[in-house]
Amino acid sequence: MGVLPKTTVARLPRYLRYLDDLPRQTETVSSEDIAQGAGVSAALVRKDLSLLGAAGRRGIGYDLHRLEAVISRVLGLGAKLAVAIVGAGHLGTALANYAGFKVRGFEIAGIYDIHPARVGTVSGPVQVRHLDWLAEDMANEQYQIGIIATPANAAQTVGDLMVAAGIRSILNFAPAVIRLPEAVTLRQVDLAIELQILSFHLAQ
Amino acid sequence: MGVLPKTTVARLPRYLRYLDDLPRQTETVSSEDIAQGAGVSAALVRKDLSLLGAAGRRGIGYDLHRLEAVISRVLGLGAKLAVAIVGAGHLGTALANYAGFKVRGFEIAGIYDIHPARVGTVSGPVQVRHLDWLAEDMANEQYQIGIIATPANAAQTVGDLMVAAGIRSILNFAPAVIRLPEAVTLRQVDLAIELQILSFHLAQ
Repeated sequence: MGVLPKTTVARLPRYLRYLDDLPRQTETVSSEDIAQGAGVSAALVRKDLSLLGAAGRRGIGYDLHRLEAVISRVLGLGAKLAVAIVGAGHLGTALANYAGFKVRGFEIAGIYDIHPARVGTVSGPVQVRHLDWLAEDMANEQYQIGIIATPANAAQTVGDLMVAAGIRSILNFAPAVIRLPEAVTLRQVDLAIELQILSFHLAQ
Repeated sequence: MGVLPKTTVARLPRYLRYLDDLPRQTETVSSEDIAQGAGVSAALVRKDLSLLGAAGRRGIGYDLHRLEAVISRVLGLGAKLAVAIVGAGHLGTALANYAGFKVRGFEIAGIYDIHPARVGTVSGPVQVRHLDWLAEDMANEQYQIGIIATPANAAQTVGDLMVAAGIRSILNFAPAVIRLPEAVTLRQVDLAIELQILSFHLAQ
């Protein structure tokens, strides 16, 4: 398998979610079904899956369980990944408790804040620790992914602290654009994007 | 403008976010820049924007402010849209307080729950009301978008209640697949999707 286009990678989790939601007894699935479930064209689904080396059979489709296994392996979803959240407000706490992470193999291994009233309280599966401990905790916890769930004005500082602590994959939920070194994979989550897509449909 | 493909509509908010984040003095922007900002190919950007009737000039690019205006208009972002959230736990409260909604014209006009301890408390800009009031409140508030921010096992019931109350655009943050009538626009938000994309980059 060569280097996958970023846009293909971004679609794979959507395909996987559709496949996982199919009834358990399903054996094969067509590119048309996947396309409808993921909101893209069937031609694009076939192109993406061919890049993974997954071949469908004409008139039958793809073997469901084999396809799920291939996509999971490509996404590196086999092993558990340790996640650190910074920001133990409502958003951070909601993310720490989000049921959809654990089933995908993402384990919330640490949550940090700077407010004395929050430090020491329990948030989801862990106790909130002071942000000052982040770098030191890295030695034990080996966080692989950092989630920024702070107010917008703290996001850049927290991103810099995560990078200094050695975290190389960061997801920013704060509504602020931040800049990090090129070697770090940074993804910005904009919760308003889905509302804007709904807004389009209202305007029709 | 003909009917826009769903996949084009889904990309427009990403283009808009990139454009909005450019320095204020910027006058023109190339399809290559937009493509990089949104994580898609430049050819796709040009195709999408041509569907909106927006034409770039060779070697110069698109007029930034005209392009922002066109995309905003297509997405129906001119007017304020009233949003009702059901679920006043951490996720619902985080969404009610999310700074990124208001700047895009989405106004949290109501938030509902069934837990006596939450009803009557203030969450973001509004007071939490009992879910029993949703249908009656529609007469005054004219909610255009409903957000489901409940645990997974309540999502279907709440979706049905929203539809019965007359809400036609629904965003489901609960990690559960729900089914609603075809006439309703339903979008499922899976917060784990972005983590899976990061996971791919870790696996390389």
